[in-house]
Amino acid sequence: MPPDVEGAITTMGSVNNEFFYWMSIALMMLIHAGFLAYEVGASRSKNVLATAMKNLLAFATIIASFFFVGWFLYNAMPSGFIEMTDAAQAALPWSDNMGPNTADSASGIFWGAFALFAATTGSIMSGAVLERIRTSAFLVLTVLVGSVVWIIGAAWGWHGAGWMLTELGFHDVGAAGCVHMIAGFAALGILINLGPRLGRFKADGTPVTIRPHNLPLTMVGLMLIFTGFFGFLMGCVIYSNEGYATIYGSPTTLSAFAFNTLMGLAGGIIGAYMMSRGEPFWTISGGLAGVIGVAAGLDLYHPALAFIIALGAGGLIPYIGKLLEKFKIDDVVGAVAVHGGAGLYSVVMVGIFLAGYPNTDGNPSISLWGQFVGAVVFMALGFIPAYLVSLGMKKIGMLRIPPEVEAQGLDLAEVPATPYPEGIPVTVMRGDTGDIVAVPADDAGEVVTIPKEEVK
Amino acid sequence: MPPDVEGAITTMGSVNNEFFYWMSIALMMLIHAGFLAYEVGASRSKNVLATAMKNLLAFATIIASFFFVGWFLYNAMPSGFIEMTDAAQAALPWSDNMGPNTADSASGIFWGAFALFAATTGSIMSGAVLERIRTSAFLVLTVLVGSVVWIIGAAWGWHGAGWMLTELGFHDVGAAGCVHMIAGFAALGILINLGPRLGRFKADGTPVTIRPHNLPLTMVGLMLIFTGFFGFLMGCVIYSNEGYATIYGSPTTLSAFAFNTLMGLAGGIIGAYMMSRGEPFWTISGGLAGVIGVAAGLDLYHPALAFIIALGAGGLIPYIGKLLEKFKIDDVVGAVAVHGGAGLYSVVMVGIFLAGYPNTDGNPSISLWGQFVGAVVFMALGFIPAYLVSLGMKKIGMLRIPPEVEAQGLDLAEVPATPYPEGIPVTVMRGDTGDIVAVPADDAGEVVTIPKEEVK
Amino acid sequence: MPPDVEGAITTMGSVNNEFFYWMSIALMMLIHAGFLAYEVGASRSKNVLATAMKNLLAFATIIASFFFVGWFLYNAMPSGFIEMTDAAQAALPWSDNMGPNTADSASGIFWGAFALFAATTGSIMSGAVLERIRTSAFLVLTVLVGSVVWIIGAAWGWHGAGWMLTELGFHDVGAAGCVHMIAGFAALGILINLGPRLGRFKADGTPVTIRPHNLPLTMVGLMLIFTGFFGFLMGCVIYSNEGYATIYGSPTTLSAFAFNTLMGLAGGIIGAYMMSRGEPFWTISGGLAGVIGVAAGLDLYHPALAFIIALGAGGLIPYIGKLLEKFKIDDVVGAVAVHGGAGLYSVVMVGIFLAGYPNTDGNPSISLWGQFVGAVVFMALGFIPAYLVSLGMKKIGMLRIPPEVEAQGLDLAEVPATPYPEGIPVTVMRGDTGDIVAVPADDAGEVVTIPKEEVK
Repeated sequence: MPPDVEGAITTMGSVNNEFFYWMSIALMMLIHAGFLAYEVGASRSKNVLATAMKNLLAFATIIASFFFVGWFLYNAMPSGFIEMTDAAQAALPWSDNMGPNTADSASGIFWGAFALFAATTGSIMSGAVLERIRTSAFLVLTVLVGSVVWIIGAAWGWHGAGWMLTELGFHDVGAAGCVHMIAGFAALGILINLGPRLGRFKADGTPVTIRPHNLPLTMVGLMLIFTGFFGFLMGCVIYSNEGYATIYGSPTTLSAFAFNTLMGLAGGIIGAYMMSRGEPFWTISGGLAGVIGVAAGLDLYHPALAFIIALGAGGLIPYIGKLLEKFKIDDVVGAVAVHGGAGLYSVVMVGIFLAGYPNTDGNPSISLWGQFVGAVVFMALGFIPAYLVSLGMKKIGMLRIPPEVEAQGLDLAEVPATPYPEGIPVTVMRGDTGDIVAVPADDAGEVVTIPKEEVK
Repeated sequence: MPPDVEGAITTMGSVNNEFFYWMSIALMMLIHAGFLAYEVGASRSKNVLATAMKNLLAFATIIASFFFVGWFLYNAMPSGFIEMTDAAQAALPWSDNMGPNTADSASGIFWGAFALFAATTGSIMSGAVLERIRTSAFLVLTVLVGSVVWIIGAAWGWHGAGWMLTELGFHDVGAAGCVHMIAGFAALGILINLGPRLGRFKADGTPVTIRPHNLPLTMVGLMLIFTGFFGFLMGCVIYSNEGYATIYGSPTTLSAFAFNTLMGLAGGIIGAYMMSRGEPFWTISGGLAGVIGVAAGLDLYHPALAFIIALGAGGLIPYIGKLLEKFKIDDVVGAVAVHGGAGLYSVVMVGIFLAGYPNTDGNPSISLWGQFVGAVVFMALGFIPAYLVSLGMKKIGMLRIPPEVEAQGLDLAEVPATPYPEGIPVTVMRGDTGDIVAVPADDAGEVVTIPKEEVK
Repeated sequence: MPPDVEGAITTMGSVNNEFFYWMSIALMMLIHAGFLAYEVGASRSKNVLATAMKNLLAFATIIASFFFVGWFLYNAMPSGFIEMTDAAQAALPWSDNMGPNTADSASGIFWGAFALFAATTGSIMSGAVLERIRTSAFLVLTVLVGSVVWIIGAAWGWHGAGWMLTELGFHDVGAAGCVHMIAGFAALGILINLGPRLGRFKADGTPVTIRPHNLPLTMVGLMLIFTGFFGFLMGCVIYSNEGYATIYGSPTTLSAFAFNTLMGLAGGIIGAYMMSRGEPFWTISGGLAGVIGVAAGLDLYHPALAFIIALGAGGLIPYIGKLLEKFKIDDVVGAVAVHGGAGLYSVVMVGIFLAGYPNTDGNPSISLWGQFVGAVVFMALGFIPAYLVSLGMKKIGMLRIPPEVEAQGLDLAEVPATPYPEGIPVTVMRGDTGDIVAVPADDAGEVVTIPKEEVK
């Protein structure tokens, strides 16, 4: 190929590479719009604004800290510990690559996609701990999970040179492990120290359901998260003008991802619907569990198999939820079940269904043992640091708000605003004739009409 | 062109083709987020969660059944009846093309876009029948519409080899016929058998408006649907590195689509606003009617003409709504008017304004007669199967929930959860001084202050 | 390069160019979904639907008028006054370029992206004037701002041949000036004539906070706007298969935009949180202020600098809000502070931090003086026409609704519908045992159970 032609094609590929990940970032913003709606809806009305503020602050602090710390860790730690490789040095915040640079059109866009992954990981945990955690403790923990712990996991097991690939043949193309498992198990570690909300369990241990104040808003939020997942999953592939590859460098197609993402979503919803007997929160969370449940093998499953695996993932989560209640774990949004549980399931299923499938570059083939060890690593990496840091905070009384504040509601104590100052009142309207009519909401409602003449 | 250069360019085109339809799928997910918000808002509060569950289950069952049945029908039926062509065999669920396959990077992404079209078609109908249909009957009907009927219509009239193109010169680039008309007329067929909600018509036939419990949520939902429509419409063109084509293979541009989509949206809103005298539900639905009203000729209209045609589409729908009320048809979301009515209008307008425009490959030119026959085919294909199946279900008492359940609300009977357990209460907040203030919502509200000292 | 290869590469670039801006348009639709949610939430419940209708009508009238007038002005006025250049003639509504045309695949898609910018500009102003402006006056003003004034500003200062670039070296790649400043200062001009809402200031001038009826909805709306901003910002670059350029033709990368957009968002949220002491409305608006605050220099700032500049932008807006209150300016959504204030700040910061940076094509380098003059031009262009037209309307009594309508609420007077006919009532549900349970929302709620046997 003549060099000028090759140059033109390479440049075009690079331009489209930027476009591709820019869209990935934009779609992942919807995950955060969705999280805000989802978690606000899942709170009681006395805590609504405190929840929204936690969401915003988690996003902002993770983006900033991921620039200064997280991206470096990803590039420095594939071998297990920090090594000052070229890639690591290029990821230092003062490097030429970490800013506008027409000679490097890729770093910013990759950093951005990873930063959104980081914010997602930190935000998954945030839902679990709502309604009783201190904001300061929350911010420390969300930065720990979002800008340190998960990205070390990604360097180890979701990187073309990560030791989990080179030693174990670990396979998790859709980040079910480094994002979802780590977020879910970190949530579990914190929840053990944080304890349940007041009134969540009776003295004898019987669980009491504390209901979302606005379940429809929670459901709309999850639908936005589903949309944003398409940004997340396209962020899991490597674009090149010669074809797509997984994060491990093996060839793949967006067609494979489309088949299995959609079949996973469908299977997860149906599985959770059946196993929860139509409970709405679990049913819609089942969609998430379904996608996560097939994420590790998105590149290789047959779509019908993905549907069946996702049925299992969706069907599993209500039981994990019940199991956690037995241990008096109070997880407001089911993060441990949906992300931790389905993430673990996802990693293990790859070991069952794809064992023996070869990896590229002389790395070991996929194996059940490799997946199992990888799962244990991610469990530990998610659980231990979050458990220890939250335990330390608990010891010095920094983890949880005082019970009287919790009973009263966080908004009143923390937030100089109020979510629904008018409530949502019944309203009246002017009818076709000009009369004012108190609205007949349905057949049971009484119609009250004020004739036009009597209206001032 | 040297073969290696040609190969490199073809490969790059194929990579970007995948990217293009992946984005189409992702944006169409917003249609479903929007439908959920829209239909939940349009329900009464006693049916809110049952509505949301129907949305989720429609989506999940259509995606799954479209993998096993729908995609095959599209590829097998362009000639009118099932033929086992190569394309048909490649669309069988056990074919090599229907799964991850690095030698076929296109099938999954095309399937995915069509699957989202299918889910949209099935979901359009779902809004019409809310608040009194049995879930089991609903699922059968939504799969019938979403995975069987519309896709046969698409094979016939929205396919480069479909008989409606080759025999009639039928032209409907934006799927106003196979998606919107079929969904709308299927809804009509079901509504005739299903009957109106209790209290929707008085004994003398006078209609009683049953209001959406949360009209703002319905409006936000429609705005998300508008966004998702850009995914839908890009899914209506064929990407290639040599330029875009319509589904019929004639050359087109996204510029044409952008001009006419936006002018259609604007015209539809204005038309519906004027003709409904500012009724919000019809006004925002007018945006949808406007886009649908110009969809069939998006590739060819002048934007000023598109604006005028859309004015007509938007202006028409409130009248169709009123006409349906005369026949005691109770369509909760106006699906028959907005999708059936504006879809029919769209197909016919092409016959009026674009008659004589040549089609490619020796197919007949666009004609009013061809559009008219095409419209009748889609009306019949939408109406008849849905009418007959719902009639059968009615005969065996499977179509509608018992009146006492309907009066009480579906959520109480069907759903183990509740949407707004606290209502949306008036909340209090802490003022700048530390006093707790019962919030003065506006100038008419009474301010109640509890001094800081008296707050425990 | 052989001509056939060059042709193939150029064609592919053109195809992807259309794809790029189509995505920009689609994402910007989310800005309008977000504006609707945001402004509806920010209204009192008595004005909710009137607010939503204003949003829809602003969008529709701007899109239509931008086709007939706005796009021509952009292409005709870079030199300062209307000149009938080739570009201007090609932008006339009856030109061959302003409609479907396979020989011009770019005009429609550029027009579409600019039309969405126009709708954004007009809609920014709309939030400021809610709850007391006449719909007719509003529509005149929104078209003035959205289809005339801002686009003249864009022709002058956001165009490769604009006189502000060629004379002053003005630099504002992210449209902080022509979009945000103009919208913000236009809002200010109107607000002076419109006056505050009834009850917003006491007789002695003390401000009274009028609270959003649904702050969570406002926050979800802003999150959608953040997502849409990625469409807005990609619409600020020029795609080509040889690399990205700013609107001024200087080379840039999406990587630079990704770094600085995300760091701007993070910095703005944190700055506003700190300076408003955790007030939710200002905190989330701080995200917007942060992005706007760095928008003018997105291509050139180091991300750490962008973070710091955005901290300042976010921290500034609550003070601008307070300052406006001193002058009895009642800006419902903070548009003057967030868009006008942060936009001005953004343009000036470029003068401080990027002074001396060379522009392309022999244009003057960036300078503080050039930025300052540019800022004054945009302030004047935003403020003066909007002030004068609204003053004229005020004189003839066309600007503001009568006080009795305002007190009663606009919905009752203007809109034949009602937003929440049922309020959002407390609901009951059926428990696991089949008993009906009045829901225990939290530990303070009383559980009321109706045994299954007593339920009819």
